[in-house]
Amino acid sequence: MKKIAVFTSGGDSPGMNACVRSVVRTAIYKGLDVYGIYHGYEGMIDGNIKRLQSGSVSNIVQRGGTILKSARSQEFRTPEGRKKAYENLVKHGIEGIVAIGGDGTFTGAKIFFEEYGIPTVGCPGTIDNDIYGTDYTIGFDTAVNTALEAIDKIRDTAAAHDRIFFIEVMGRDAGFIAVESAIGGGAEFVMVPETKTDLDAVVKSLKNLRKTKTSSIIVVAEGDEEGNAEEIMAKVKSKIKDNTKEFKVTTLGHIQRGGSPTARDRVLASRCGMAAVEGLIAGKVNCMAGIMNQEVVYTPFSDCIGKTKQLIPDQLKLIDILSI
Amino acid sequence: MKKIAVFTSGGDSPGMNACVRSVVRTAIYKGLDVYGIYHGYEGMIDGNIKRLQSGSVSNIVQRGGTILKSARSQEFRTPEGRKKAYENLVKHGIEGIVAIGGDGTFTGAKIFFEEYGIPTVGCPGTIDNDIYGTDYTIGFDTAVNTALEAIDKIRDTAAAHDRIFFIEVMGRDAGFIAVESAIGGGAEFVMVPETKTDLDAVVKSLKNLRKTKTSSIIVVAEGDEEGNAEEIMAKVKSKIKDNTKEFKVTTLGHIQRGGSPTARDRVLASRCGMAAVEGLIAGKVNCMAGIMNQEVVYTPFSDCIGKTKQLIPDQLKLIDILSI
Amino acid sequence: MKKIAVFTSGGDSPGMNACVRSVVRTAIYKGLDVYGIYHGYEGMIDGNIKRLQSGSVSNIVQRGGTILKSARSQEFRTPEGRKKAYENLVKHGIEGIVAIGGDGTFTGAKIFFEEYGIPTVGCPGTIDNDIYGTDYTIGFDTAVNTALEAIDKIRDTAAAHDRIFFIEVMGRDAGFIAVESAIGGGAEFVMVPETKTDLDAVVKSLKNLRKTKTSSIIVVAEGDEEGNAEEIMAKVKSKIKDNTKEFKVTTLGHIQRGGSPTARDRVLASRCGMAAVEGLIAGKVNCMAGIMNQEVVYTPFSDCIGKTKQLIPDQLKLIDILSI
Amino acid sequence: MKKIAVFTSGGDSPGMNACVRSVVRTAIYKGLDVYGIYHGYEGMIDGNIKRLQSGSVSNIVQRGGTILKSARSQEFRTPEGRKKAYENLVKHGIEGIVAIGGDGTFTGAKIFFEEYGIPTVGCPGTIDNDIYGTDYTIGFDTAVNTALEAIDKIRDTAAAHDRIFFIEVMGRDAGFIAVESAIGGGAEFVMVPETKTDLDAVVKSLKNLRKTKTSSIIVVAEGDEEGNAEEIMAKVKSKIKDNTKEFKVTTLGHIQRGGSPTARDRVLASRCGMAAVEGLIAGKVNCMAGIMNQEVVYTPFSDCIGKTKQLIPDQLKLIDILSI
Repeated sequence: MKKIAVFTSGGDSPGMNACVRSVVRTAIYKGLDVYGIYHGYEGMIDGNIKRLQSGSVSNIVQRGGTILKSARSQEFRTPEGRKKAYENLVKHGIEGIVAIGGDGTFTGAKIFFEEYGIPTVGCPGTIDNDIYGTDYTIGFDTAVNTALEAIDKIRDTAAAHDRIFFIEVMGRDAGFIAVESAIGGGAEFVMVPETKTDLDAVVKSLKNLRKTKTSSIIVVAEGDEEGNAEEIMAKVKSKIKDNTKEFKVTTLGHIQRGGSPTARDRVLASRCGMAAVEGLIAGKVNCMAGIMNQEVVYTPFSDCIGKTKQLIPDQLKLIDILSI
Repeated sequence: MKKIAVFTSGGDSPGMNACVRSVVRTAIYKGLDVYGIYHGYEGMIDGNIKRLQSGSVSNIVQRGGTILKSARSQEFRTPEGRKKAYENLVKHGIEGIVAIGGDGTFTGAKIFFEEYGIPTVGCPGTIDNDIYGTDYTIGFDTAVNTALEAIDKIRDTAAAHDRIFFIEVMGRDAGFIAVESAIGGGAEFVMVPETKTDLDAVVKSLKNLRKTKTSSIIVVAEGDEEGNAEEIMAKVKSKIKDNTKEFKVTTLGHIQRGGSPTARDRVLASRCGMAAVEGLIAGKVNCMAGIMNQEVVYTPFSDCIGKTKQLIPDQLKLIDILSI
Repeated sequence: MKKIAVFTSGGDSPGMNACVRSVVRTAIYKGLDVYGIYHGYEGMIDGNIKRLQSGSVSNIVQRGGTILKSARSQEFRTPEGRKKAYENLVKHGIEGIVAIGGDGTFTGAKIFFEEYGIPTVGCPGTIDNDIYGTDYTIGFDTAVNTALEAIDKIRDTAAAHDRIFFIEVMGRDAGFIAVESAIGGGAEFVMVPETKTDLDAVVKSLKNLRKTKTSSIIVVAEGDEEGNAEEIMAKVKSKIKDNTKEFKVTTLGHIQRGGSPTARDRVLASRCGMAAVEGLIAGKVNCMAGIMNQEVVYTPFSDCIGKTKQLIPDQLKLIDILSI
Repeated sequence: MKKIAVFTSGGDSPGMNACVRSVVRTAIYKGLDVYGIYHGYEGMIDGNIKRLQSGSVSNIVQRGGTILKSARSQEFRTPEGRKKAYENLVKHGIEGIVAIGGDGTFTGAKIFFEEYGIPTVGCPGTIDNDIYGTDYTIGFDTAVNTALEAIDKIRDTAAAHDRIFFIEVMGRDAGFIAVESAIGGGAEFVMVPETKTDLDAVVKSLKNLRKTKTSSIIVVAEGDEEGNAEEIMAKVKSKIKDNTKEFKVTTLGHIQRGGSPTARDRVLASRCGMAAVEGLIAGKVNCMAGIMNQEVVYTPFSDCIGKTKQLIPDQLKLIDILSI
């Protein structure tokens, strides 16, 4: 193997740049040429591919976003699109790929590998943490800390005004951000897609809580089956029938995707990037390099996509206990 | 004057605690007894009033929110409510008041002074900066920095995905937060209540801009006459007729009210608090202690409420120039 | 078991408050009475012990330091001191203890348990991460992020002026903070107590690096065998013999111990606190509750103190690769 | 005027990039060509000068340091050096200069203008705030906030351990950073070059304070006439003769120069940059564009250098009052 390429795809996440940097420098350190593919699969199809040097990734370890840009590509879902992509890679002599992204990225990479056989190793780049095969994904720790800082600020206002705040965090299919930011933020409740939300129980507890507490914070993952934070607030409000209470909603939105990555995300990104290149050199294909129990693990893309990562049961229990 | 009281009222703002601390310690330093009234005018009516010591305000200079709590009071708008409030103050022997808040707080204080004559000096505590008689209000600098940090994070994502982001910041009647966060955040446009928003011009510029720039940030004050960020985005989207572009909206919401105050807000809050107590001792009544051109200025409540603070003209010009 | 007590001891670390909160609320949730011992072992000897309620630990999850205060106690090292401590515990009817701290804390707890048999479970509260029996200690993640933010700031100046910066971080016996902040901060070198520092090799690499890079950052753990950052800088400077280069030293110092804990530290602290109480109830004694591979693990104090936690080998390798 | 150049010089300060961006874009907006001179006067002598476009300054408003690099130049102090510099400017057809920096920068600019007559307008870029002719300098607000965040963290530890902390902040000749960070940080004392430090009085107050307070923070400007923080701590310790107290020193150092600029610094930098270009076009020479009382003011370099900016008297008084 002499030439490899790296790209980022799907929603951006903090630490993607640290991962790109690690891929580039590990490749150079190991004697490989390395190319950046811009705008994800879109750039693979359009031939938006450039040689990267060690200096190309200087001073980016601390930056959010991705210098390689990201995009979602409709065309790559078609056989014609993938053919063009393959021809571009061949033209540049690329013999291996590091794909940084989440579920959608790995699904594309798996099909592409099965059709054209170019060795591909993935790195888990998504804030949602919902990838099987790694304890944490790149960007998750930063997103949780961003959510937490927001909750800390809102608690100031909640406490000053004796209000009940519903805070919506990201997580369409998974409650990881919600659960950790709720524990860290001292929330009274958390509502996540993985568990059935019992609004009557919440209303009951809220009435009891309100005797001793003057403000409450409820963290809602955007994908909860009872609706988004605005809808859940409306339901709770109509059930609680106490118009002395003020209910407020804040939807954190896109701030959770950006920002300078935390130490944990930079270290994780650096390790995964190194492991991906070492994996390619060692002959790994069609799999993701993650970190489990502090060690590098390569998991087939089919498992990363097909298996579901579970919430840590202790953590859900914690919220019940800590909110008393 | 032997006994004074202090309270916070209206929307909370970062630095209120630093202001309370300064009022309490200046009062004690000057040989006065000082009381805290909890929950604003509500607590004045309910007699929720407690003696404060120097130690009562230890370790709060860095905290958001307000240890005295805040509330909006309907009852204080009635003559009966104000009568109860007066009687409670008399009962505690309170001869002077420091009122920390914004427009609504000062309107109440003015009426109350005119009816009952208890000397009152205000401190400008609101994130909106829309109080005449002070260059900046307590909490404004923190709110702008909070908005700016959010914009910095969103720019990471905007740049990674080539998107147009509409970011809504607080400011129902005033564009101060919007203008300063737009300059600081490198926004392409800002939309504020003080100036007519010309959406056709925006669309035209946006089309021109898009040839050289791949992402844009537009800051919208919540009180813009064209609507909130969601509405304005919809209008722009329907006018621009370019479905290759992705438009996104983020509403920053309540995070702008909380958080540890910046240095500027802590210093301003400390100075205003000291000046309010010194003002009361010197016989000032029915006015607000603010800082203009680095010096303490006392402005009658009637002017604080009645006169409009203008945006700095240079700052609007800056956005036009810097977005090229 | 009906009554337990909790204390913090040794150097404070961010997350100790979150841990105290978790101990208190878990205990109450499980039907126990819970007491706080103030100033560590000192307070045990002096009888500085107070009943804690759920509300005693409200609004502290986000605060650095420890509301229970901390201290190092000479007197507890004497049999007389420990006897007094025991009598005070008996007087309050305390049947179990949660000890939050590091090596020194656990050494004391072990002796005390062996002498008097009061069940004790520890929680790993120290920024240094040098406790065997847990993947991370409470406070480590915050300390690394604090160091990293400082390095990010210094890199701005280093790059602007083409300088070589030696940054000293905490770690008298262990290089964990140094290694993770060096990886995250994009440092060229890291010097830690665990490995032999070869200054001649550093000087040689530095000369090579300087051809392509204009600034360098070197992270030094305070306990490196070649000396502190000031001493190492002097040695490197005298060896490098290039007076066109500017060398600077910054010692981060105590800022690394404080600050609002990160999400990771709050979650870890909450889990350890809960596990300690559950451990006491289940009959655990003389051991520490830590988290390894995402699960609660109880490790005998003798192992926590006696065994050495190793740096992750991959991480040292990463610095070599990433600094090219 | 058709072509202007911009450079940064002296110690870097946060906001220099925002200022460069504003100079470049204002110049282009006004129809001028604009060049960047790299490494300050050094680059002027070496001819390290490049044309800048609007895109050259994209995405830098939020970055610390300076993309134009900075340096101190011995050669520019010689007539030969300045002659070379002049010839390089002539070669590029540069007819006006914006110089971003502090005292030393303006001293050089003044001599250069007097010798060669190329119109020069300065912008106040230094964290120290010690420039006459502007209420604040670019970088000061960020430096104060950085110092304050450090003090907030140290207070956690000081309070947990009942310690007396001496914290040294930057300020060789001026106490601005020390005073504002001391007020904002709730310090008990501040020691600055502008006022006589009376250590006996400090010791006396400290003894009194210690009866009610368990920890104290003392902020020391590096240029205090009694020495640096380490020296002052030693003097106080030897005078106080109370070995139950723990004394600690932290020197914040270079972290105060870096970091993403605050909103205030970005806005100030943007305004000064615009004003400098507008000043050049309007025929201003040999002066600095600053902001006083919210308005642009041009002050002759001779005054900027020769006159001394005073501390705000109220602020020193505040520390006495607030520390009770």
